[in-house]
Parts: sequence; C-alpha cells; structure tokens
Amino acid sequence: MTVKNRIKIAYIGGGSKQWARVFMNDLSLSPELSGEIALYDIDKKAALLNQEIGRRINKLPEALTEWDYCVYDSLEETLTKASFVVISILPGTFEEMNSDVHTPEKYGIYQSVGDTTGPGGILRAMRTIPLYEGFARAIAKYSPKAWVINFTNPMSLCVKTLYDVFPDIKAFGCCHEVFHTQDFLCKVLKEIKGITVKREEIFTEVSGINHFTWISEAKYHDVDIMSLLDQFIDKYYMTGYNEKGDTDEYKYNCFAYANRVKMDLYKKYRILGAAGDRHLVEFMNNSWYLSSKEVVDYWKFALTSVDFRKKQQEERVLESTQMANGEKEITLEKSGEEAVELIKAILGFDVKLSNVNLPNQGQMKDFPLGAIVETNAVFTNDTVRPLCSKTLSPAVNDLILRNLYNQENLYYGIKERNIERIFLSFKNDPLCSTLSFEDCCKLFIEMMENTRSYLEPYFDINNYTNGSEKKRCNNG
Amino acid sequence: MTVKNRIKIAYIGGGSKQWARVFMNDLSLSPELSGEIALYDIDKKAALLNQEIGRRINKLPEALTEWDYCVYDSLEETLTKASFVVISILPGTFEEMNSDVHTPEKYGIYQSVGDTTGPGGILRAMRTIPLYEGFARAIAKYSPKAWVINFTNPMSLCVKTLYDVFPDIKAFGCCHEVFHTQDFLCKVLKEIKGITVKREEIFTEVSGINHFTWISEAKYHDVDIMSLLDQFIDKYYMTGYNEKGDTDEYKYNCFAYANRVKMDLYKKYRILGAAGDRHLVEFMNNSWYLSSKEVVDYWKFALTSVDFRKKQQEERVLESTQMANGEKEITLEKSGEEAVELIKAILGFDVKLSNVNLPNQGQMKDFPLGAIVETNAVFTNDTVRPLCSKTLSPAVNDLILRNLYNQENLYYGIKERNIERIFLSFKNDPLCSTLSFEDCCKLFIEMMENTRSYLEPYFDINNYTNGSEKKRCNNG
Amino acid sequence: MTVKNRIKIAYIGGGSKQWARVFMNDLSLSPELSGEIALYDIDKKAALLNQEIGRRINKLPEALTEWDYCVYDSLEETLTKASFVVISILPGTFEEMNSDVHTPEKYGIYQSVGDTTGPGGILRAMRTIPLYEGFARAIAKYSPKAWVINFTNPMSLCVKTLYDVFPDIKAFGCCHEVFHTQDFLCKVLKEIKGITVKREEIFTEVSGINHFTWISEAKYHDVDIMSLLDQFIDKYYMTGYNEKGDTDEYKYNCFAYANRVKMDLYKKYRILGAAGDRHLVEFMNNSWYLSSKEVVDYWKFALTSVDFRKKQQEERVLESTQMANGEKEITLEKSGEEAVELIKAILGFDVKLSNVNLPNQGQMKDFPLGAIVETNAVFTNDTVRPLCSKTLSPAVNDLILRNLYNQENLYYGIKERNIERIFLSFKNDPLCSTLSFEDCCKLFIEMMENTRSYLEPYFDINNYTNGSEKKRCNNG
Amino acid sequence: MTVKNRIKIAYIGGGSKQWARVFMNDLSLSPELSGEIALYDIDKKAALLNQEIGRRINKLPEALTEWDYCVYDSLEETLTKASFVVISILPGTFEEMNSDVHTPEKYGIYQSVGDTTGPGGILRAMRTIPLYEGFARAIAKYSPKAWVINFTNPMSLCVKTLYDVFPDIKAFGCCHEVFHTQDFLCKVLKEIKGITVKREEIFTEVSGINHFTWISEAKYHDVDIMSLLDQFIDKYYMTGYNEKGDTDEYKYNCFAYANRVKMDLYKKYRILGAAGDRHLVEFMNNSWYLSSKEVVDYWKFALTSVDFRKKQQEERVLESTQMANGEKEITLEKSGEEAVELIKAILGFDVKLSNVNLPNQGQMKDFPLGAIVETNAVFTNDTVRPLCSKTLSPAVNDLILRNLYNQENLYYGIKERNIERIFLSFKNDPLCSTLSFEDCCKLFIEMMENTRSYLEPYFDINNYTNGSEKKRCNNG
Repeated sequence: MTVKNRIKIAYIGGGSKQWARVFMNDLSLSPELSGEIALYDIDKKAALLNQEIGRRINKLPEALTEWDYCVYDSLEETLTKASFVVISILPGTFEEMNSDVHTPEKYGIYQSVGDTTGPGGILRAMRTIPLYEGFARAIAKYSPKAWVINFTNPMSLCVKTLYDVFPDIKAFGCCHEVFHTQDFLCKVLKEIKGITVKREEIFTEVSGINHFTWISEAKYHDVDIMSLLDQFIDKYYMTGYNEKGDTDEYKYNCFAYANRVKMDLYKKYRILGAAGDRHLVEFMNNSWYLSSKEVVDYWKFALTSVDFRKKQQEERVLESTQMANGEKEITLEKSGEEAVELIKAILGFDVKLSNVNLPNQGQMKDFPLGAIVETNAVFTNDTVRPLCSKTLSPAVNDLILRNLYNQENLYYGIKERNIERIFLSFKNDPLCSTLSFEDCCKLFIEMMENTRSYLEPYFDINNYTNGSEKKRCNNG
Repeated sequence: MTVKNRIKIAYIGGGSKQWARVFMNDLSLSPELSGEIALYDIDKKAALLNQEIGRRINKLPEALTEWDYCVYDSLEETLTKASFVVISILPGTFEEMNSDVHTPEKYGIYQSVGDTTGPGGILRAMRTIPLYEGFARAIAKYSPKAWVINFTNPMSLCVKTLYDVFPDIKAFGCCHEVFHTQDFLCKVLKEIKGITVKREEIFTEVSGINHFTWISEAKYHDVDIMSLLDQFIDKYYMTGYNEKGDTDEYKYNCFAYANRVKMDLYKKYRILGAAGDRHLVEFMNNSWYLSSKEVVDYWKFALTSVDFRKKQQEERVLESTQMANGEKEITLEKSGEEAVELIKAILGFDVKLSNVNLPNQGQMKDFPLGAIVETNAVFTNDTVRPLCSKTLSPAVNDLILRNLYNQENLYYGIKERNIERIFLSFKNDPLCSTLSFEDCCKLFIEMMENTRSYLEPYFDINNYTNGSEKKRCNNG
Repeated sequence: MTVKNRIKIAYIGGGSKQWARVFMNDLSLSPELSGEIALYDIDKKAALLNQEIGRRINKLPEALTEWDYCVYDSLEETLTKASFVVISILPGTFEEMNSDVHTPEKYGIYQSVGDTTGPGGILRAMRTIPLYEGFARAIAKYSPKAWVINFTNPMSLCVKTLYDVFPDIKAFGCCHEVFHTQDFLCKVLKEIKGITVKREEIFTEVSGINHFTWISEAKYHDVDIMSLLDQFIDKYYMTGYNEKGDTDEYKYNCFAYANRVKMDLYKKYRILGAAGDRHLVEFMNNSWYLSSKEVVDYWKFALTSVDFRKKQQEERVLESTQMANGEKEITLEKSGEEAVELIKAILGFDVKLSNVNLPNQGQMKDFPLGAIVETNAVFTNDTVRPLCSKTLSPAVNDLILRNLYNQENLYYGIKERNIERIFLSFKNDPLCSTLSFEDCCKLFIEMMENTRSYLEPYFDINNYTNGSEKKRCNNG
Repeated sequence: MTVKNRIKIAYIGGGSKQWARVFMNDLSLSPELSGEIALYDIDKKAALLNQEIGRRINKLPEALTEWDYCVYDSLEETLTKASFVVISILPGTFEEMNSDVHTPEKYGIYQSVGDTTGPGGILRAMRTIPLYEGFARAIAKYSPKAWVINFTNPMSLCVKTLYDVFPDIKAFGCCHEVFHTQDFLCKVLKEIKGITVKREEIFTEVSGINHFTWISEAKYHDVDIMSLLDQFIDKYYMTGYNEKGDTDEYKYNCFAYANRVKMDLYKKYRILGAAGDRHLVEFMNNSWYLSSKEVVDYWKFALTSVDFRKKQQEERVLESTQMANGEKEITLEKSGEEAVELIKAILGFDVKLSNVNLPNQGQMKDFPLGAIVETNAVFTNDTVRPLCSKTLSPAVNDLILRNLYNQENLYYGIKERNIERIFLSFKNDPLCSTLSFEDCCKLFIEMMENTRSYLEPYFDINNYTNGSEKKRCNNG
C-alpha cells in the first residue's frame, strides 16, 4: 500500500489531563502511523510538559513509531494541514467547576458529576459553547477537511456547536461511558453462562444522548445477554455490583458506583442505561436518585466532589512533571480508550464499530433531525456512518426527549446570548424538579455571579439580574 | 336540497350532567335538524329525566324543531342506525373522584382539576379506558359509520382508545377550554385596540394536547393580537385578569382563575397556553405553580374540590328534576358550546373551523404519528380534516412531549393491564416531580385501594401490592 | 368593526389578459373593500388600458365600491405599501410559446397545453424563474408583509422560486382547474342522485401538484359522490361528458375536453384527476394519451394551438380597447374565480376553504418537505393554512412523484443556471418518454435556439451547444 | 470460546444452480463451522446430486470442516431447528423465463436480464410471490428464529413478501452486483493513482434498490475515488471498460458489459450506478439504452438470451453429475461470494460491512418506510443493522422512486391477486415507456397466457382477459 501515513494531529487543550498521556501512549504503539502532534493549550506550560513527555515516549524501546511533538501559540498554526483535530478542554478552572457542582447543594440539589446536564452542566455550557464557536470557525478556516474528535463535556452541546457553526465539519464526539456498561454485560455473561469475553466481542445496540445512552439489545454469538439480566439482577440488586471489582469502591473512590441504579432502571424499563450510574441519575428528577446524601448512599454511587478532582489533578500534574523530567518512568501499554483505533479506522486500516455522538441524520428516526444523539457507527476509510437504531418504548423516549429538547433550547439560548431563554432550560432541568421558580432563579443568578468572569465576555449578566435580583426571582 | 336531515343521535352517559341539557337546548334551536335522541346511561333514571326534559323542550314555543327522545337499555339499541354518537360519562362516582383529587394532597401534591393528568388523571384513565374499549367494540359492531364525539376526560386517552380498538372509527374529541382563551384574546384586542369582536371572528393557531394546548398565532383581519400581549400583560400580570369579569372570582368559584399562569407562561415562552390556568398547571412540575396552597393563591387560580362538585351536582340534579316535572321553567338560548354546530357542519350545512382532538396524521409534524393531539380542523360535509400546524419552539415541545409520551406509555400500560408499566407514567408525571419513589409508590397503591372496586375487574391489584406494600415501595 | 379596509393591491403583469378584467370586475362587486390597484406591466400600454377600463368600471351603477387605478413604472412604486401582490405574467411572447408548444411536434411529441410541464413547460420555466427571482427580491425589499398571489405558469416553479429566494414570503398559487372537476362531480351528483348543488357546497379532498391534482374523496352531506362514479362512467366512458354542455366542444374549442381521460384514470386508479384532461395527460408517458393526433382525438380533448391563443388574444385586446374607450359596454357580474374571495377571507371577512399551491409543510406527509404541492387550505384573518391530506396509493404517488422530483431538479438546475442539470429533467419528462437521447438533445437545443433572446441573459447556451450540436447529442 | 458452532443450514432450491456448489465450497473452507446442510428442492434429483457433491467435498484433503448433507421432502423437516435458511429458487422453468424475456421483443421491448423489473420481472414476480408467501408461513411455523438469506429475483419483492407475511422474520437479501462496481472502482484507483487494492479494502456508500443501486461516495484511506472518475471516464467513455479484462467480452458473453452505461450515468448524474449495465438499463425508459439492438450494441452490453441460459444450465448439470459420480475432480478455493462470510459474522466470528436488501427502517430517510431498499449494513453477533445513507439528488431520487413505488404497487397487486392493479405497474414500468395502452395490454395478456399454468393457481386470468382480449385492450 502506497498511501501516505504521515499525518498531523492537532490537539487542542488536554494540557493538564491524564487523557493526553493515554493518547500519546496509544499513538506510540501504532506502527501504522507517524507524523506530527501539534499541541495547543491556553496553559502553554502544560502543552510543553506534554511535548516533553511525548519526546521521552519516542525514545522508549517499546515505542513502535515516532511522532514530532510541536507546541504552537495560535490555532492557525496548530490546525493548518492537520488531518485530525482532537479537542479536550476544561472550560474555566476548577473554581468555576466547584461552583457548578456544589452551589446547588445549598438548595438541596445534589449532582454526582455536574458537567453534562443539571445546573452545573448548564453553566458549564455557557462557558463552553462560545469557545467552541471559535474552534468551529478556526477549523472552517484552517483545516476544513480534518476530522474533529471531541472529548469535552457537555459533549452533545459541543458537537452541536461545531456542526451549527460549520455544517460541513467532519466532527464526532467520543465517550467511553458505554464501554463500562459493555464490561458489565460481559460480567453478566460470565456469571450466568460462564462465558468469558471482552467487550469488543459482543454487539450492543446503543442509542440515546451522551451520558444518558441506552443498550436495548446485547448479543454474543446467538446468546441474548439481555435475557440473562433478570437472573443477574435478582442476585445483585440489593448488594450492587461493580464490574471492576469492589462493590463498595464508591465509598472511597468518588468516581465509582455499584450499578444499582442501572439495575433498577432495567427492572422498571426493561432496557439498560449505558453510562455510569453517576451520569444516569443526573438526567432524571432529582427526587428519584439524588434527593439526599442518604438516598445517594442507598443507591451506592458517589458524588464526585471538585475537591477530589483538584487533588487528583495536582497528583497528575506532579506525575507529568516527573515524567517530563525523567524522575518517573514511563511505561507503554495499550489502553482501553478507542480514539487511536478510530483514527486508524478512519485512515483505512480497519473497519471499527463503536458508539459516537453525531447530529441525528435518521439514526434515531423518532427523534428530531439535527439534534445530537449517541448511537453505534461504523468507522472506516475517511467515513463515519451511524447505524439505524431501533425504536425505543414511549417511556424511555420520554426520559430522553425531555433532556434532548432541554439541551436544544439551551443551545439556542446560548447561541443567542439570551439568558431568559437559557433559564427555561435551567428551571426545566430534571435536577431542578423540586425547586420553586424563586429558588431556581436565585440559584441560577448565584451560579452566574460565581463564574461571572467567564460569562461576561458573552452575556449581559447585569442586565439580567437587573440590580434587583429579588424582583426577578419573586415574580415567577 | 333533498338530502334527508332526520338523524339519530346516540347519547351515552350525560345523565346527570348539565351538558346534556345544553346539548338538547342547542339541538332544539337548529331548524335544519330533527330525528331521534337515543339516551343511554347506566343510571337509567338520569336518562329518563333527560328524556322528560327533552320532551318539554319540544313543546316550548321557542323550539325550532322537534326530537324524539328515547331511552334504551343496551348499547346495541342505542347505537344501531345512529349517525352521531356522543359520549360523556363519569367513570366511577364522585367518591372515586374524591380519591383521585384529594388523596395526593396527603403527599403534598395539589391538583386543581385531577381528571386529565397527574395522579388523579392516571387513576381515572385506569377506570375509563376499559369502558372505552367496550364502547369502541360496540360502535364497530352497531354503528361503524357514525361520527363519534367524545367529551369525557381524560380526553386524549379516550380518543386514543377509540382509534386503537377500532381504527376505522370516525371519532374526535371536543373541548371548550380553547374557547376561553380565545375570549381572553378578544378582551386583549378590546383593551389595547378598542376593537370589539367575538371569538369566532378571530383566527388562532392551536396546537398541543388536550388541556395543554397552545396558541402560537392570533389574528383579527391583519391585526396581530399576539403582538398586543406584552402591553396587556404589563398591566395585568400582578393583578390578574378574568375574561368573564371578576378577577377575584377564583376566591369563591373553584372553577375560576385570573390568567396569571397564562400570562406568566407567555412572558417566559412567548406563546399562549390555551386552556384554563387550572388545567395548564397540571402538566408542569408541581414545584412550579402547585407546590402549596399559598403558591396556588399567589397565582390566583382555584383548586376544584370534589365536595364542590358534589354540591354543584346535587343542585343540577334537583334542577333537572324540577325541569322534568315542570316545577322549573326551561328557557332556550343558543349556548357557547359548539357540538351542535359541528354536527351541522359535518352534515353539510356549514364549513366550520374549530379545535379538535384527533390522532396525529401529520397535523403536528414534529410529534409522533398516532398520538392524540389537539389542533385546528375543518368540519364540513362528512369530513373532519386537521390543519397543518406550525413548528413550536424546542422548549414548548419539551413541555408537551413529556406529557404526550407519558400518556402514550400510560395508554399501553392500561391496555396491557400492566400495573408496573402504568407506574412508570405515574412516577414520571410532572405533578409527582417532587416525590420520592417510595412516596410515589405508596400514593399509587393508596389510590388504587381507594378505587379498588372499579379497578379489580381489569387489574390484578393484589398481585401488584403483593401483600407487602412495604417491600414494593422501599426498593425503589 | 373599525379595521381599515382601504388596501393597496399591486398587480404585476396581466396587461393583456382577460384575467385582469375579471379581477377588476370582482373587486368592484365587493363592497367591503376599496383602495388602490397598482398596475405594472412591461407592456405599459396594456396597463394603461386596464387603468382606463377600471375607471370606467368605477362609474358603472352596479359597482359597489370604487378603486383608484394607478400605473407605475417601477416595481418599487408598485409594491411599496401593498397588502396584496397579484402576479400574472406571460414570460416571453407568443412567439416563444409557439416554439414551446409546437417545436416538439417535429419529434412526435404532442402537448395539449405546453406551459406547465413537458418540453414546453421546461423552456417556459427557464424564461420565468429568473424573472420570479427578481420579483421575490423586490417583494422582500418593498412589501415583505404583503400576501402574494401567483397565477403564472408553471405554477409550482413560480411559487417555489418565491419561497426559495425569500423564505418569509406569504405567497400562494391559485388555480381554477380543480373547480371544473368539482363542477363535474356536481353533474355526477345530479345525474345519479338528482341533487342539484354548486361546487362550493361539496367537500373534495384535493392533493397532488398543480395541474396534476387528484380528488380522493368527495362528499355532499353524507352522500359519497365518489361511490357514484362507476355508474356515471359506465354511461359516459365512451361518449365522453362535458360538464359545461357540449361533449363535442373539443372539436371546435381548443381549450375543451370530454373528460374521457379523467374517467379512464378513475377506472384504473380509483381516484379522480382534478384538472382538465388537457393538463392531466401532460404528466404521463406521451405514449399513453398523447402519442398521436388520432389518439388525442380518441380521448376527445383538444390540443391548444398557439395560433388559437394569438387569435384569442387579439380579440381580447380589441375588446379591451373598446371597453377602455367606451365603444364596448362593460357589464359587471360575479365571476367564477376565487381570487377576490380569498383576499376577502385573508382580510378577515370570511373563512374560505379552497385548493392552493404552497410549499409542503406536512400537508402531504409522504412527499418531500418544501416541494410545492396543491392541497386544500383554509383562508381567514391573515392566514392560509393547508389541511392534512390523506395518503394516496403507491401507484398514484408514483405518477405524482415522478413529476414532482423532476420539477425539483429542474428548479435547482435553473437556479444554478446549469443547462446540463436542466437536461436531466428534460429527458426524464414523461412527455419525452419515447425519445432517444439524441432526439431529446436535439429538440432541447432547438427549443433553446428558438427562444435564445429570452434565455441568454441567464444561460450560457453557446457553451452548452458547444459549436458542435452533433457531438453533444450523439454521445448520449 | 465455548459457544456451539454446530449449526443447521436449510437450503431451499438451488438444486440445479452453480451457486449451491459455490456455497458448499465456501462452507467447507470455514473451519469455525460445521453441522448439517438440509437440502430441499422440488426437483429432488437435483438436491440429491448436491448431497453427493457435498459428501465428496467433505472427503477432499483441502476441506477444513465437515458437513452432514441431508435431503428432505418437506419444508417442515428442512426448516425445523435451522439457524439459517438460504433460499435460491427458479420460479417456473426456463420456458416461462423465455416468455418473460423474449415475448416483449415482439413489441420492440428489449430486456437485458428480464428477471427483476420490466415486463419479465413483473411476470416472474407473479409466479414467485405466492411461493414466498408459503415460505414465510413455513418459516414462521418451523424456524421463526432462523436467519433467512434470499438470493432469488426479483429480490426486493421476495424480501418484501417475507416481511409482510411474517413481520418478525430475520431475513435479508444478498446480491453481488455491487461487488462488481467496487471492483470497477478498484481499477479506477489503480489506473489513476497506481494503487492496487481489493474491493473489501475500500468504503463505498451504497443506496437504492436492488439492481438499481448507487454508489455516491467511494473512499480508500483518504483518497476520494469518485474524484478520479472524470479522468478515467474521459479515457474510456467511448471504448468502454471491463473490470474483468476484455472490453469486448459483451460480444460473446451475454452476461458481460463494458460499463459504458455506468460511465454515461456518472457523467449525467454525478453518481455511480452500482450494478451491471445490463441491470441498470432496465430501470429507465426503454428509449434510453434499450430502444433497439443497435442502441444496445452502441452502449456495449449484452442481452442475456434464455437460450444461452439453457445451454449454460445443461453444462452445469452435466458438470454436477460428473462431480457427483467422481468423473470430474472438485477443487476447493475461496470464492468471491460473501454468503458464508455473512453467516460467520452473524454467528459472531467477525464484524462485516456489506450491502444488503432490507425493509426501510430509516436507512434511506427520504424513502417510504417498509419499502425494500439496498444499503450498507453491519453484520455481527446475531445482528444485521443498516447504516444511515446520505440524501441523493432529486434527479436520482426520481429514477429510483419511480421503480420503488411501481414495485410497491405490484407487490400489493399480487398480494391481492388483483390483475387490474398489477397492470398499473406493467404499463408504468419504465421499459414499457414507449408502448401504447393497447400494446401494453396485449403484451401483458400474451405473457400471462404463455405462463398460464404457473399463474392459474393464484390468479383468475380468464376473468381478466374476459373472453374478449380485444375489448379490454382497445378501450385504454
């Protein structure tokens, strides 16, 4: 084969996240590929750190290929001639995230993640979408033919922005939450049938919206894994089950959960929620699984505190620094992430089936066209094509559509810089179900005030709060 | 014209309701028509009372035509050869309705009507749909070509049942709630522009689902009435406004409201809720307009107590008795109801434009086909054809679809006699937004117990509650 | 009522057509209305003639209202402040029309009308659409709120252009062909049932595309007129039937037909073609009803020669001149046209149900959105809303869609000034079914050459024919 | 892996076709599989011959697995416990096919294949669909969970029948025509870019209906193969090109073609017809590529005569007999067919992307749901899921839909045993474009008469022809 496989991959953000290291790791283990990794981060130091780590990886004996790691100061330089653009940013700092996640607790609203939906997801979207408008315009200008892979949350709204601003973009959003549920199904298969397989070996019918995705069918050869669930759930419903091992991990790891919510939803809806319990619960009435810390505890999942994230981040930065300066050894090993595999498939080295976030072009025929949905898709030869998914039950459609339309309204509210319109999504968010208008309004204003410096470039907050928060929030 | 205009109208139910009298009144003032009114009621005495009143109406000097009033003991006799079938029943008694409306109050759930949606509407649907399955089968057998007009609530589910059981039925559901909003718009036109018109003279673009219908456009000649609303609302938002006169009527008439909710929704969504405030609030989170009696009072609408209904009913029965035996004079005057006008239009005497409940066949193109929606339609010459309605905003679609899919799930749950499935709609109902699973479950069981005698012929309640309500309701 | 009813109606074209006189006649008989008729025609003399006739009409004793007739030199003056814009133009002259209609005869292609579809319709569209692009831009600029009524053929493509160029336009296309079929159905009702009614009194379910519209249901009160057709057709199939009287009129009036095609289509498809036979036949394979003059004769309809049109036109111009200078008396009498009635309904004086050409917004739910379709609509208070129409059979959908998509392709071909793309519609037109590529190509080039002066401002014809017609047409 | 891979494959028909041998060959080279091949053919001798060949294959040293070959007398025995059902029958004999293909030539209608569409395809459908109704009922009864693979033509109608009769069937239709076009694209890639690949290595976006399928996109890594076509076609348009080698093969092999039609369609429509030219031409006006033998010759493809088929068949039967009795050596070599690979993918051994015929469930979102379309699909773990395909241009939609709706009408006509309705498809078939009604009718009747013995069990032909063919065919 004579096709050139020297490519440029632009990497926007990711400076301070572990994810960039995983990506460099996986790339170094792909002998089919080589080329340039163009790093761009508003925290340039972080990008330089990654550059240094990348260069060290190149020199490792296990590395199967070599990459040029370059750090740029502009999107223009970063994007020009790129075949792929990876975006993975943190909009604002952990201070803003702290407000997103924890301010609602004052009003009795608990969020287990707070970056996708709920009050936290909405405020985060207000900071993120304007940035993505800029990315989309830059991509349209400097790398219109590149494939754009998004990892930033809120996933749906980031992908929506990219397509709305630049309709010809070749973008998609990747999320590994579905993978964990596939692992869970493999455990079910093992437990009930004694068959040991990896998640790549089973077929799961995936549809929904990011982090509120559903598996309606799961097959291994001719074994219907869904039909095994009742037996499995009978056994583990009360105790919970953690596909990674320790059922009680949620007590000390605030990213963990015991799948009790997932099993409960299956008992009720006969379909499997395909994301971590921490995500699933945020798309339903807060009175259901998030009404109090006791209820959270009962359902055996953790609320991810931002303090925890900060601490984890510090450790990672330290680790990165150590890796960069050679204090800490780097070891290469294929990760469980799929980004590099998808890139290889798009480059024509494979046919890959995976779940992906894309504008609805018929893959969920009962859902509005153009809304961002997550379904299976085939990746191969410069192509990402979604699969037609099956019709879901009215009850499940109801749960999904309530969130999907709320996001659609939110998107247009942010696009129009119209705070009134954004508030419609805020008060209608399932996690605000128990709040009065007054409390919704106060909370919303408080959250905007807390993150004001990131919002003011785009939104006229003063005009909204109008000197008289009281008046606004008291008349409904 | 030589077309025969002697027709048979079957009237199922209505025995003890004022509505039958209004209908007989309007028929007697329609010189184009005559024929037979076939009365059928499980309370035969009530039917006989109506027969007697009808006969007295025939003899009034103002009566412009004469009708034969017959009381039958079977649906077969009632329906055979009917050109029209009117259905207006009370499923169960006021005792059951008392449970529907007031039991949820123990859990902090207030319902202003309780017969369409919310916990009350759901229980009522469980009593009603099995009866409607019977009506549909009887109509298929005895009067398959007849036009069927439904007035019973829950409207959408009654119409859904008729079409699901007998797809070739020519049925539609009529509701006068939209009329009041049209009256309201006439008042706006008068107030702002000084133009006095009747509601029939304006055009309103109507779409949504019954009792949660919306007017997105209102025109009188080239005057855009919607554009006048801001000015009107600025003036009346805080005080409220009652198109019938007394703004404070809600304080003593528990069917009244001051349109504050309607105006509030317009401020937020830029579209006018086209039903009484009492109905509108029941389709949204109970935390919004129904969280407490104080909040209800703040928004200036009444909760309709079943005691009030009972009292009203007793007065009406007394009045009917007195009319029947001649103690009370009967006066004929064209009512504000449209049923008789629609009948005349269908018989070819007119072209009539009005709102109507029908299965979606494209009139709301963004909504699922086959679901019952309420839009404008043209009535004429044996034909009822819905008009294409305009696309609504995502935020309004969201409010509507959450209820529409909940009803779809409820319908199939009742059809399957599957209490588990019904409960999915119960717990997802907007009026239950603030309830925990446990409370939802307890409330649901309590409401079933209260109305057990009407449910047991169809549902296996014992199996559901399973001896151990506690267990069921405690594990989510 | 205090609403102002002094309006300005802009009239583009119509200078030399009888239709303008009918319109002035009907307006003068509408006491509700008065105001200004703004006349604009590239043949200014013709506009002045109409002005003179209008002024004479004003003075007639039967005139119930008075209009100011003004002639303008620019679209700006004509359109500014207009409430209605009527467009009725002849694109090119009868010389071009002569080529449109008769050139194909050299290749054995007969056209009975030649202005809507077929080779003639396509060439006419090439002359018309660029003009309509200009009208749409002018309306967007000078009278964006005006209602625009189109009478020009090709109807669908004119309406398509208006909406494509100015999506917020309030335009619709009116055509009286359906009326004649309604008259035909009234005759059926009379013949079989002895009931005499006017077409306005029956309901017909209308759907399709202009001049290839279909009536799938026809009701008078509860009489199903369609069910009478078999008996009627048994009687008249061979002889033909003319709802206006003389079955053999087609022998001397080249606009006439005996409904044999309509009856034949009903026998085959169980649905009634709702346009004159002359129009219907042009949308199907030319081998069916138009293969030769003998076949045309067998089916008893006329081919409308352009010579006849010229002669008729001359008579009309003479008549107009005589009317304008007082040599010929003008008599006022309500015509059978509906334009003025629709205007009155839109102004709020009535609720009117009629057939209309509009972009598909769901009224034909099995057809592509945005394509121009003809269905029933309600006209009232500043509103024109189409009715949902019923699903047609696959065989009828097939006939319609073949033409609809051909027109869609044609539209975009003309919009792009892409002759290659236009040719795809030309060769795929049902009337060219029997032609080889070579003949299609030669005919197309010949027709462009014949009308070159009207096409060259928009199309690069020389480049297409490429010096070497032979080469182009010989390689397929 | 512990999943059992001993399966039963039922094979209906195929007795006398080479295809069964290819299938047995490929199965014997699949070490993952073994089990039983259940052979059923109304020509039992042919089944026994295949059994004998199968047994000999088992003994070959190259055979990687072994199969039990059983011959059954009933569908019940054949189907019971089958995991897969392969159907590949000849409806009627070559005598009927001779009439299908060659009778229309008397009327100037040439068919290059005559088994899918056109007059021949319609008559064949009339013989086939009633048989498939029986197969569908038997599968529903004896092997409802089996995967059913259809190879019989008319493909779309066979698959339609299976799903219409048994909606829960897991059936799909396979066709290798697309493969040849993929081979063609590989040659283009080789010729223009010098890159040598196999068809499995490129991605092609496939959509349309069987034998009139289209490739709108073709990618090898990031090379856009479609963009190379203009250059390729410039070179080969006049001479033609045969991806298998000899451009002039069509002169002696009546299955061959030189892709001139394919290239011509690409020049006109900018999309590649994805079937052999012989098939493509049958879906368009006969005046385009099939008007005479000279025109056929000009476009360089062959008309496949049934005499040729008979001769070929005799050779194959002889060959089979010799193989069965050992006179002729059998050699095993992986074929180019995909059936066995698809079976393996469905059994979970692979993820396979290929084109397939399925009811439209959204994969062609602009086409009617439920109609049979051919698109890409993913095959894996008990699953066949179609991919969403891209919107095609109006001109191409037009070509496809004309045939799709004609087939839909044909299907329901045959289902209803309604010859009048079937005739609507006959006369509207593109290959009959040049025929008058009279000739259409005569031809249709003649073709029914010729194949009467196969039709009479299902259709009342006498009643249709009505003693008086003349009368029927003369009145249009």
